[in-house]
Amino acid sequence: MWQLFQFPLCPFSRKVRLLLGEKGVGYELVRESPWARRDEFLDLNPAGQTPVMVHSDGTTLIDSHAICEYFEETVEKAPMIVGPAPARAEIRRLVHWFDERLHGEVVAPLMRERMTKRLVHRQSPDAGALREAMKQANAHLDYVDWLLDHRRWLGGPILSLADLAAAAQLSVADYLGGLDWRGHEQTRSWYSVMKSRPAFRPLLSERMEVIGPPAHYDKPDF
Amino acid sequence: MWQLFQFPLCPFSRKVRLLLGEKGVGYELVRESPWARRDEFLDLNPAGQTPVMVHSDGTTLIDSHAICEYFEETVEKAPMIVGPAPARAEIRRLVHWFDERLHGEVVAPLMRERMTKRLVHRQSPDAGALREAMKQANAHLDYVDWLLDHRRWLGGPILSLADLAAAAQLSVADYLGGLDWRGHEQTRSWYSVMKSRPAFRPLLSERMEVIGPPAHYDKPDF
Repeated sequence: MWQLFQFPLCPFSRKVRLLLGEKGVGYELVRESPWARRDEFLDLNPAGQTPVMVHSDGTTLIDSHAICEYFEETVEKAPMIVGPAPARAEIRRLVHWFDERLHGEVVAPLMRERMTKRLVHRQSPDAGALREAMKQANAHLDYVDWLLDHRRWLGGPILSLADLAAAAQLSVADYLGGLDWRGHEQTRSWYSVMKSRPAFRPLLSERMEVIGPPAHYDKPDF
Repeated sequence: MWQLFQFPLCPFSRKVRLLLGEKGVGYELVRESPWARRDEFLDLNPAGQTPVMVHSDGTTLIDSHAICEYFEETVEKAPMIVGPAPARAEIRRLVHWFDERLHGEVVAPLMRERMTKRLVHRQSPDAGALREAMKQANAHLDYVDWLLDHRRWLGGPILSLADLAAAAQLSVADYLGGLDWRGHEQTRSWYSVMKSRPAFRPLLSERMEVIGPPAHYDKPDF
């Protein structure tokens, strides 16, 4: 049995959980708050980041990207890096785009201002940083709209890890009230389909301590 | 024939070039300065980053990670993500560690202070930022020492993409005078072997405009 070290708003753990859900891989959640810098966790992963997965046979997997490739390689069901080599490269490009750019420009600042400052530092969010993150969010939603104007799913003609990576990041931004969906109908209807997938339902029902999501957050029809 | 859009000190392009060299894949270098934000390049890659590879048949590969996986999948020679699935996950964890942490904490600040500020902004480097980057570099060299105390190569018993990723980042830090090799004998002798590889020699002979490397930079025995 796998254990997955994570916290409810970790977008990279969400990407992994969506993949495990689609593939039907069972796991037990272990709550880990990376900001606590617990010694045993740092021994497990020197980077100090979630997700980490540990199997009862001792196998340890670290880093969401390495974890996703591992399950892509070892579980045949529901392949998520699919198609000929150039199509697979495009899926990986987008996963990296969402993990780095959407995360760095939108999700990380929202998490810092609305989660870490509240839970760890007992500070108020910085209004300027929030405004900037929401402005960047709008540009990212525009890019997803553009992708969906050209493709059935984000990475190409079928559901792929690119969709899971984008949905994972956007779901955390949405939880933290950072997305204004008006004017993004293509992305909204794609995200509505993503939210309806059985793999997504458990994630949407979880809450992060005192921080509550907006009312539309867990509704597939929003 | 492949074209590779890059600039001499791009560490991610260096990782790709080391892989292509090991695999014997030919390519033509095209100089691209991402900071110029050339329109045609942004049309090719909305992230505006090097490396990008374009084949004469129109295939376009973006993002160093997607590019490496592409050539791993399509060229059998010199496999660099090797072994059973958990060993492959460990290689990918380390690649990500070097690409994110070593890059973000050491190489990116050195590039900003000693390259971009000089070439683009005509500013002097910030001494405090340089000191911090060199302090972080020492910690990263300690970690590589530790890996080499436990393994023949960084990712395990054989040469892998983890070695190429680490060497690519370290070579840029070394070019920019950011590494103090004293006290890191394991890493120094591993890096000396890396520098001797035919795939590495062309990179070490290239120069970045007015910025010169220290005297030891291109010597395998240093």
